[in-house]
Order: sequence, then C-alpha cells, then structure tokens
Amino acid sequence: MSDIMSGIDVLVSEVGPRDGLQSIKSIMPTDAKKNWIKAMSDAGIREIEVGSFVPAKLLPQLADTGEIVQYARTIPGLQVAALVPNAKGAEAAIAAGAHKITLPLSVSETHSLKNLRKTHEQVFEEVKAIVALLKALPKDKRPHFEGSLSTAFGCTLEGYIPEAQVVKLGERLMALGCDEVGLADTTGYANPAQVKHMIKAIWAALGKNALTGIHIHNTRGLGLANALAALDIGITTFDSSLGGLGGCPFAPGASGNIVTEDLVFMLDSMGLKTGIDLAKLLKVREIVTAAVPDPMYGFTPDAGVPKGYIQGGNGWGIGNDTKLAAE
Amino acid sequence: MSDIMSGIDVLVSEVGPRDGLQSIKSIMPTDAKKNWIKAMSDAGIREIEVGSFVPAKLLPQLADTGEIVQYARTIPGLQVAALVPNAKGAEAAIAAGAHKITLPLSVSETHSLKNLRKTHEQVFEEVKAIVALLKALPKDKRPHFEGSLSTAFGCTLEGYIPEAQVVKLGERLMALGCDEVGLADTTGYANPAQVKHMIKAIWAALGKNALTGIHIHNTRGLGLANALAALDIGITTFDSSLGGLGGCPFAPGASGNIVTEDLVFMLDSMGLKTGIDLAKLLKVREIVTAAVPDPMYGFTPDAGVPKGYIQGGNGWGIGNDTKLAAE
Repeated sequence: MSDIMSGIDVLVSEVGPRDGLQSIKSIMPTDAKKNWIKAMSDAGIREIEVGSFVPAKLLPQLADTGEIVQYARTIPGLQVAALVPNAKGAEAAIAAGAHKITLPLSVSETHSLKNLRKTHEQVFEEVKAIVALLKALPKDKRPHFEGSLSTAFGCTLEGYIPEAQVVKLGERLMALGCDEVGLADTTGYANPAQVKHMIKAIWAALGKNALTGIHIHNTRGLGLANALAALDIGITTFDSSLGGLGGCPFAPGASGNIVTEDLVFMLDSMGLKTGIDLAKLLKVREIVTAAVPDPMYGFTPDAGVPKGYIQGGNGWGIGNDTKLAAE
Repeated sequence: MSDIMSGIDVLVSEVGPRDGLQSIKSIMPTDAKKNWIKAMSDAGIREIEVGSFVPAKLLPQLADTGEIVQYARTIPGLQVAALVPNAKGAEAAIAAGAHKITLPLSVSETHSLKNLRKTHEQVFEEVKAIVALLKALPKDKRPHFEGSLSTAFGCTLEGYIPEAQVVKLGERLMALGCDEVGLADTTGYANPAQVKHMIKAIWAALGKNALTGIHIHNTRGLGLANALAALDIGITTFDSSLGGLGGCPFAPGASGNIVTEDLVFMLDSMGLKTGIDLAKLLKVREIVTAAVPDPMYGFTPDAGVPKGYIQGGNGWGIGNDTKLAAE
C-alpha cells in the first residue's frame, strides 16, 4: 500500500466504524458496516479503521471485526486498518489480513489502566510481542504497525500531560519496533499552538517519518483548527469520523472525532487533493442513519457546499478567480 | 479608545447583541440587553456591537439600539460599536454616542440590493454623506468608521466572489474616507487558504492598518479554523457571538457567528492574552437564555475547560511543562 498517497495531498482516514461505533450503545448489523465501508471506499476514502480486536464482552459493537476486516480486504485500493489492544488482538488482525494495526498507548498511565487495564510497562510487553509476531512474517505480509500516543494533549483523569512524557513514550515505541507513532487527542484538550509544538518536538526526537498522522476530537470545537495547525506544518494523515459519530467511552467528558464531511470540505476548498467525492460522501450518511438511531453531526451536511462550488478544483477563492469566474 | 489593545494580544469583539439578536424572532427586553452587555464587559470583553440603526419595522428586535448605545457608553472601558445601513443611521449612532460605526457593503451587489436595498453606487453615496457628517464633528468626537466588506468570501445568491472585486471595493471605501475596512464571511463560505489569500491581497492594496479585523460565520464548521488562519498572518480583531446566536436573515442558508466561548478558549489555550475571564463569560449565557428561548451553541460550554486548565496562563502544553506540572 505504498502508493496510498498517490495523486493526493492529504489522506483522510475514516475511523467511524471503529471509534464511532465503539462509543455508541447501538450495535450496527454486520451487513450495514460492510455497506458503509464499501460506500466510503466508493466515495474515495483510501483508509478505514474498520474495527478493534477487543473482547466481545467489552465492546459487543465490534465483535464482528474479524469478518469486517476480511470483507474490507476484498475492496480494491482500500487500506484496512484495525485497532489492537494487545498481542492477542494483533494476532487476530494479522489472521484477518489487516494492512495496518494500531496499538494505543495512553500517555496518561491512569487512563492506560482504565482503558487497556495495563501499566505502560505492560503495554510495552505487548508491543514487543507484536513486533515478534510481525518479524516472523514474510516482509510483504507484515501489516504496518503504529503505536498511537493517546491522551497526548491532556487527560480527563490526569489533566495536563507534559510534552516530554509524550516524546519519551514515542521514543520507546519506535525503539521497540513500531513503524510509526500516532498522536491522538483522545480528550479534545488540544489547541493549535500545542499541536504544532508537540509535533515539532516528536519530529525533533524521532524524525519526520516517524509521525505523519493525527487523531483529533472536536470536544471543544477546536477540531478543524487543530487539523489546520497540523496541516500547516506538514502532517498529511487525519483521522475523522463520518457524522462525527464516536468518541472514547473510557474518557469521561470526551466527545466525538472531527467530522469527515467538514474536514473534506475544508481540505477540498483549500485546493488540496483528497481523492474524495464530497457529494458521494454526504450520501453515505444515509447508510449509517438507516442502521443506527444515534445522532450524526456536521455543519457541511446541513449547509451544503457553497453556491457555484467546484469540487476537486484549485480551491475556493485562492487566486483562481479566472477559472471560477468562467463557470 | 486608542488603548483598546492595551495588555492584550487579541480583541474579541462581541456582536451577539446585534448580529445574534437580528437573526432571531424573539425580541430581547431592553433591560436584559443591558444586563448582557454589562456582564460581557465585566467578563473582560472590550468591544461590543450593541445594535443596528435600522428602521424598527425592518428589525423590531433592535428598535431600542439608541437607548442601548447610550447605556453602553456609561460602562467604563467598553468600546461601543453599532451597525449603520446609511447616513441616517450614522446620524442616530453619533447622537447616541457610539465609539465605532460600521457600514456593511455587500461585495455581492445582488446581496446588497436584498440586504440594504441599494446598489454599490448608492451605498457609496451613503459613505460620502457619513464622512461629511464625521468631518463636521470635532476630531475627538468622531466615531471610528469602518466599511465592512460583507459576503466577501462568496454569496448565497451570486456564488463565487472574485477577490479582485473585494479589493476594488475596499479601495473605494478607503478613498471615500473610511478609517478601516472589515472583512465579513456573511455566508460561511470561507476557507483558511482563502482567508489568508484575501487578507494579503487587501493588505497589499491598502496597507496593514486598513484591515485589522474579521467577521466569521461557522456555517460549514470551519469558523475557528478560519479564525486561526487570520490570526496566523496577523489579524488581531475577531467578531463572535455568545452562544453562536445569530446569522444573517437576508442570506439564505447562512447560520451563526463563531461562538465567543469557543474562540476565547482557543485563544487563551494558545497562550494569547484576550483580557477575558472565561469562567465569567460562560456564566453570561444564563442572562441570554433567561431572556430569549432561542438555542445557544458552543462546545466549550458543554465540555468545560480541560482538567487542571489554568486560565490566562502561558498556554496549554506549549513548552510550559514546568509551570503546569507544579500545579
């Protein structure tokens, strides 16, 4: 999947089927999940986190993740990602054929104990076991392994998280053999200045290739501003959830991911290539709303695109007057 | 009011009593308006657009603007702004004692005809008449006169608005004697790249002093991202509305201003000085909700500030680990 960025500037990684569904009580039928994922891919989404390999008794909403990964793997051009809380989950993800596995490490150890029921050292043991699993595979069969630094911008339980602690844990993850680290604002505490500062600190310690993506929540309404800050300094992958469905059920007060539709509108209107057809994307909401009763959010879905808006153009109003005026 | 920026980095200019109230059907009692304005000032808001001098039959919600301006003038340290659609309105605003008057010029002439019922040339005639009024006053009695370029980022009626047209009308406003121009995304069409591009174009034509503020709507969820883009290149004044109350009733599909509470949280968490006490600001919502039944928006009011958050500090997580860790 090395060509995942081919022809695009920004990768929008849909996490609704995982982060969205894990945070609502409703259980989406497996067929609806498949339709959702297929429709997202048809709309141009190139990467989807389709589920999480956690025990079904903890998250019954995601009990069919194995089947969903197997199905998603049959969709051409789609990078299939899955969350794994431990080596056992990674084993299941590998068996199902995930292209990418993400293990969350809560920078807040208090949150780690609540979320994964593990200390940092216990999580590192899982990382080691996963790396051993991966090394036993032929290179072309190894999924990409990301260690995601969650609660990196603050924690609803611990409060402020020192940047140095985020960097230190990131260094450890890379030293243990992760291919990449991720940065996650699990609690919606981040601000644009902090986002830039944190990314630069991680890049300074680990190099730019070690961090290309960010996972942002919109809890305090700063989601797209934080995305813009990350974009401004060179982050190219953004997690988001269709209709903003989701959030972390183990972080009290946390609410949903940034809204895929609004994110895509922002990027597209800035003249950045996402490969995504916004009109098709907006239609996908119907599949989700037909399958679960939970509310979906988003401003662009309500307001629609601007009058005369040209999707996939060179941006709206950015020195392209001639082109747009000719319409 | 030349010291309005003293001790602060960013001026948050509250427009709820004008832009908010003009867009809802409810009529807020005059006393409630006074309480609202006083409480906003007590929370540290330094500039409030308190009303609009339009005929009462057009906007009965704002029929008491004269009385409100007179009252607001008694609040020490508050810059009192008012919207004026024409010279007659400006006369009333001057009589009431407004520190600042803003005349909106819709860059979209179609919108201008709908909103002010005037062509561009007819609006320029009003500008000339207002400048004549101002010149007849002693210098220390002259309100600051802003010509606000509305629908600058696109129009729900005309669609795309060429940047060159915005610049040209801005040049004309300054040539006729405005002290400053403003940029207003009346329709919520702007994107961060366009915001930067447009501001730079105006600065290139008119100089940096001719444009210091921006008026953003959050129609497509990009409001704070657009504010961040403007902030990044040096805009220092941001219009916003408490609870996002408001919008433009004459621009179909347009919805509310950016939310003051979320804007202040963003700026404060970035370590920028606004002079505003966020906790007090959040309390002010009670005055508005007690006076009108209309919904108020905002994420920060729902979520609260992060655990351990220090208001008015050096920012959240921006190289200030020691200070925050010590708490």
